[in-house]
Amino acid sequence: MIKQRLLASAIAMGSAIAIAAPAMADDGLGDYRNRFEPLPHFPPIPAANSLTPEKVELGKFLFFEPRISSSGVISCATCHNPALGWADRIPRATGHDGQIGERNTPTVLNSGFLGSQFWDGREPDLEGQALGPIEADVEMAMDLDSALERLTEFDLYQEKFAEAFPGDDDPINADNLAQALASFQRTLNTPNSPFDRYLRGDIGALNQQEKDGMVAFVDNGCIACHSGPALTDSNFHRIQVPGSTDVGRYEVTGNEADMYRFRTPTLRNVGVTYPYMNNGATETLEEAVAIMGSEMLGREFEEQTIADITAFLHTLTGEMPALEIPALP
Amino acid sequence: MIKQRLLASAIAMGSAIAIAAPAMADDGLGDYRNRFEPLPHFPPIPAANSLTPEKVELGKFLFFEPRISSSGVISCATCHNPALGWADRIPRATGHDGQIGERNTPTVLNSGFLGSQFWDGREPDLEGQALGPIEADVEMAMDLDSALERLTEFDLYQEKFAEAFPGDDDPINADNLAQALASFQRTLNTPNSPFDRYLRGDIGALNQQEKDGMVAFVDNGCIACHSGPALTDSNFHRIQVPGSTDVGRYEVTGNEADMYRFRTPTLRNVGVTYPYMNNGATETLEEAVAIMGSEMLGREFEEQTIADITAFLHTLTGEMPALEIPALP
Repeated sequence: MIKQRLLASAIAMGSAIAIAAPAMADDGLGDYRNRFEPLPHFPPIPAANSLTPEKVELGKFLFFEPRISSSGVISCATCHNPALGWADRIPRATGHDGQIGERNTPTVLNSGFLGSQFWDGREPDLEGQALGPIEADVEMAMDLDSALERLTEFDLYQEKFAEAFPGDDDPINADNLAQALASFQRTLNTPNSPFDRYLRGDIGALNQQEKDGMVAFVDNGCIACHSGPALTDSNFHRIQVPGSTDVGRYEVTGNEADMYRFRTPTLRNVGVTYPYMNNGATETLEEAVAIMGSEMLGREFEEQTIADITAFLHTLTGEMPALEIPALP
Repeated sequence: MIKQRLLASAIAMGSAIAIAAPAMADDGLGDYRNRFEPLPHFPPIPAANSLTPEKVELGKFLFFEPRISSSGVISCATCHNPALGWADRIPRATGHDGQIGERNTPTVLNSGFLGSQFWDGREPDLEGQALGPIEADVEMAMDLDSALERLTEFDLYQEKFAEAFPGDDDPINADNLAQALASFQRTLNTPNSPFDRYLRGDIGALNQQEKDGMVAFVDNGCIACHSGPALTDSNFHRIQVPGSTDVGRYEVTGNEADMYRFRTPTLRNVGVTYPYMNNGATETLEEAVAIMGSEMLGREFEEQTIADITAFLHTLTGEMPALEIPALP
């Protein structure tokens, strides 16, 4: 109850949440810092899905619920594993019966800050995203009606859906399932990374190499696409990383111009969400930085530059969300 | 650090840990209560594997570590899921590539109190048990040398093994992997269930039906096998539950007398570790009670008796272990 009240008051405060900035000693990099934004504690909340403690609580149960997969053993948390940066640390997702999917699992951390969901942006928001993996043959392989039926068998879910959606006669439905999962995911944010503290005025939160990396990140143009609080412009850019034949957004739009385009991934927590790229074939952050330099910017970065940018990227690892594993019914 | 110190002092206190008993009001059932034992906070610790905070911490990481499976997605916590009573709530375990095993997954809760491990008791202790599921083809399907190699790749594991086993030149080895996992599991206990509070003198911790169930449990002879702090004699008894052709302990000993014998399962947390029996074919606790009456005691329990015993069994659900999901390397 106390936690719920804290969450409710945190949500009510909304963007008023801020850390008081310590007195700013200048390191001469203000023009660089001003190009970035610290991560807020909460992403934008859509008017059609207000963020309530009841939806978040229900969403947490559903996120860890394997009974909405056809095998009964795969939940959202299987691939979006809290122990592994809320992703899976394998190249491509492994789902139902050990099938291997086409793409690397994105972390759900800070996913509420993204302008669209999935590598190809085929869903505009987390509500649209939430049900996809339940139904996908290579993921949870469960038809949605069966998933809802299974949930209905549990008194606890009947109660929790009714509490979360008090206006609904028949609250256990697909829309509410998606709304609850999306609500929970909007609480999985990682503020107060060293870089956020630096941006808020704690000049000592980054060491010299990390600052050199920030400067290189700006001066080399990485920031052109990796901008905003989640360090993504949420736009689609053409890239074919080594080993990938994935046509990306073209699958969604059928538009030739979208061939090989993917939504810019967030760089938040990139240090703990390896491996990298749409096919997960890039194991280290150093390699990823080098590939992005050559593929996207047409530059062969020097080793020192790669080391500096990598050091900077590690400062984007924030505080992991506090989590109490739910006791499922 | 604070948690580690608390654990260290809790371990040091050992069996001295007890809850002060409130003044005992008598409900006339003292002779029944005296047949039972409350669950201690810790099981016996073997002299060859002292319980240290460093081993427990390492064991926690390893328990959640999917990189010691050949798919990279199955960890101990996949089937022994903290959200599901540290078991999986499906009839028979689902492992590598969706293969389904022969037996129901036992909870790891309070497993340190068992006199032997696995349904057929083929290992004497948790150290013996720990490595089996890693190597089993239908579970994690990983050969042990590869698992150890993978762990060696991570600096964090090199550090944590060295801290947990400070005397060893080459601490990342199979014995230490088993010792660390066993140590973590010995902390997964559920004291202070309503029944434990009742046994310690809180006479109101059980309602009348639950007390009637306790009486029926004793009077009908369930307690003959389900005795001691974990409500198991750790002995092997002959039983063929509906649908099972499993020969049980015979597979271990080759002794005809062991045909269809299984180790008595713990009844601790039985209310949250459904489904039941070696083949997991029994969905509800009521059915399980009826089957045990007819198969083991030769009695057809009346409905009221089944309801009472079931109510009693639900009082064996204790406090779940506090758990902070580790941030794996």
